[in-house]
Amino acid sequence: MTGSTAFKTDQYELTMLDAALRDGTGSRPCVFELFSRRLSGGRRFGVVAGTGRLLSLLRDFHFGEEELRFLRDNRIVDDQALRYLENYRFTGTIRGYREGELYFPGSPILTVEGTFADAVILETLALSVLNHDSAVATAASRMSIASGERPLAEMGSRRAAEESAVAAARAAYIAGFSATSNLEAGLRWGIPTMGTAAHSWTLLHDSEEDAFRSQVNALGTSTTLLIDTYDIRRGVETAIRVAGTDLGGVRIDSGDLPLVAASVREQLDELGATGTRITVTSDLDEYAIAALAASPVDAYGVGTSVVTGSGYPTASMVYKLVARQDATGSWVSVAKASQDKGSQGGRKAAFRTLENGVAVAETIAVSSGFDEIDTAEEHPGGRPLQVTLVESGEIDSSYEGPQGTESARAHHLRVREEMPVRALALSKSDPAIPTVYVDAR
Amino acid sequence: MTGSTAFKTDQYELTMLDAALRDGTGSRPCVFELFSRRLSGGRRFGVVAGTGRLLSLLRDFHFGEEELRFLRDNRIVDDQALRYLENYRFTGTIRGYREGELYFPGSPILTVEGTFADAVILETLALSVLNHDSAVATAASRMSIASGERPLAEMGSRRAAEESAVAAARAAYIAGFSATSNLEAGLRWGIPTMGTAAHSWTLLHDSEEDAFRSQVNALGTSTTLLIDTYDIRRGVETAIRVAGTDLGGVRIDSGDLPLVAASVREQLDELGATGTRITVTSDLDEYAIAALAASPVDAYGVGTSVVTGSGYPTASMVYKLVARQDATGSWVSVAKASQDKGSQGGRKAAFRTLENGVAVAETIAVSSGFDEIDTAEEHPGGRPLQVTLVESGEIDSSYEGPQGTESARAHHLRVREEMPVRALALSKSDPAIPTVYVDAR
Repeated sequence: MTGSTAFKTDQYELTMLDAALRDGTGSRPCVFELFSRRLSGGRRFGVVAGTGRLLSLLRDFHFGEEELRFLRDNRIVDDQALRYLENYRFTGTIRGYREGELYFPGSPILTVEGTFADAVILETLALSVLNHDSAVATAASRMSIASGERPLAEMGSRRAAEESAVAAARAAYIAGFSATSNLEAGLRWGIPTMGTAAHSWTLLHDSEEDAFRSQVNALGTSTTLLIDTYDIRRGVETAIRVAGTDLGGVRIDSGDLPLVAASVREQLDELGATGTRITVTSDLDEYAIAALAASPVDAYGVGTSVVTGSGYPTASMVYKLVARQDATGSWVSVAKASQDKGSQGGRKAAFRTLENGVAVAETIAVSSGFDEIDTAEEHPGGRPLQVTLVESGEIDSSYEGPQGTESARAHHLRVREEMPVRALALSKSDPAIPTVYVDAR
Repeated sequence: MTGSTAFKTDQYELTMLDAALRDGTGSRPCVFELFSRRLSGGRRFGVVAGTGRLLSLLRDFHFGEEELRFLRDNRIVDDQALRYLENYRFTGTIRGYREGELYFPGSPILTVEGTFADAVILETLALSVLNHDSAVATAASRMSIASGERPLAEMGSRRAAEESAVAAARAAYIAGFSATSNLEAGLRWGIPTMGTAAHSWTLLHDSEEDAFRSQVNALGTSTTLLIDTYDIRRGVETAIRVAGTDLGGVRIDSGDLPLVAASVREQLDELGATGTRITVTSDLDEYAIAALAASPVDAYGVGTSVVTGSGYPTASMVYKLVARQDATGSWVSVAKASQDKGSQGGRKAAFRTLENGVAVAETIAVSSGFDEIDTAEEHPGGRPLQVTLVESGEIDSSYEGPQGTESARAHHLRVREEMPVRALALSKSDPAIPTVYVDAR
């Protein structure tokens, strides 16, 4: 296995590159746009996530010996293309929505500018990262809204492929989760990690009491004991007998949670453990979290539903050519005409239009050519949504790593505040604000 | 970033290991089992996939300096546990279903034997890999059944996180797909790769005709031209004018496919291109494929639905302690009692019971202790389903790499033939065969 990310790519990008280098169109300046025609599942907003990861993966996007040999041996491209790929480094420019930003149908989430050959081969990698991470972040943001002030932990690694699990932990954190069970996400991005014990811990011991006693000895009375391996009522009683009324928390992972949480709270209070917190973790999604709002629950652990986008495991973002130069060097807006999958040609600048601090529209200024579009801070269109992520091949490192992750989270929590109240409802509906296209001057 | 896979792990496995090393239970011999309580989505069978990947990831499951420092700095484990982890290599034994095998509720898909400390920390990695890959393979197998003799290509990389995309291509291939667009899957596992051009190729050129001509020049007349960027009828006409009636194929990526496929076939035949094949690729799943059975379609390309498990992006496999020794060295079967999430204790051997060559039951022999269970070829229970994947820490390399992938695919296609006809229907139902528990002698 190689450290290169260049083969996280669909073959057709390389066959197009090959043919384009032959006929000369490979050097045509182009503008590609990554956007979504719709919001999945009647969601009222989408959350952009993955940008920081994509930039890091772009640093390793080069074709090594193994990749070049594969392309040659399988005759996927010819010698001219092999020589081009041997020296390939993306030297174009990428502007895009800040990670954590909200998006709506048509939002120009990424704009990739470069020659056709330079830009066409980023399609799959960019879509893979943004479609996955944004799907998770969008679901996570809804859960974070539903949970209010109560902390949410992401615990879904086991229900996502091993690398996606790390990315999902990051996306959930950006969208408002406070911690993850995934150690790699802690190591790579500084996300707070958590976790104490599984049912196997209780089953390993000769009695539940032995298991609790050993856990308290190792992790202290502030630990969280899992009380539902056998009988919950007995589990709570044993937990407090062993740990005392200073026990940090108990976790419930099964049963009818509103009922169970209420009876566990009552029992804890009766035993004098009024400060012992209740964490629930059984098959939660945003709806189950909302349904527990009036229950005496102190924290949520969410697994499957957050890492799988709560019913929508991928965003529906696409990567389309929207403008290019022709043989004479003039810019041409281009768009696919297919009836059910059309696209909007032209280079775009995007703004969140606000009235009294509340978002009222996603305003997209479309330029028919390649003219400089005004993206200044004071633009009358509203708050500018795009930033420069890569300038002539130079990646802005401030969006990567733990720093980029923290700033994406802060950005998300800030811009979510701009949304009208209707954006916060969980039911299926239209996007919370309309997308309005205007001509760029 | 490190090459280790040891941190693809939930923190609680390490806190349990830490506490178990302190209280002495860490050295208790244990049997963990990976199984599923149910088949997702009313599926009639599940397909085991990921085993070969898991074994390769297990080779890199060791704690390096970075991981150990993180655990120390964050006080997740104590010094004793750090010393244990520093030298950690899995030295136990793993038996399991062959990759490509079918599974049913309760099937002991993996049985991991070792000390508690040895075996508990494989939970997340094993589940991540098998839950993801099996979800994809299960959906893919249904699509492969629906497509009959027509070839299926996996093209969903853009709708899966970048590493999952590679795993998904492999899982789909094991379950009957014939090719993938994902280059990395070709490089790593020798899966046939395919792909020619996207809409951006047509949009890059001054006319559709220029684009087709250039593609045919580069890739030959056997290539597949994408004909729906503008008007499909004109696209077909242009394609044949440029490439001649020997054109290999056309691809349709939008519109009402049964209608469009029929009219494209008619047009091609009228133009004399009777041998030109039609590939369709627009939002297909197993139901859409089945609905096209009577249409003149020659091949399918499937994206989103296969990489997301067609509505069920994760299998619901869990990893549970089922037997362990007590303080006196006697074996004890253990099981969680939670009402909605119970488990079946004891070590198990599994057989597919056949009558006249047709599967009639998943027979699971349960041993209350750790006795050797008879898994011989001639077992009266039927065809033995488990093989030894890791013996005292030694990984069987025949299940890894391109060879393991090919043999998993062959195994899947072979054992699918054993299923009763009702297993092949797409509608929601009970598992195709019942799970029957018997006592092991």
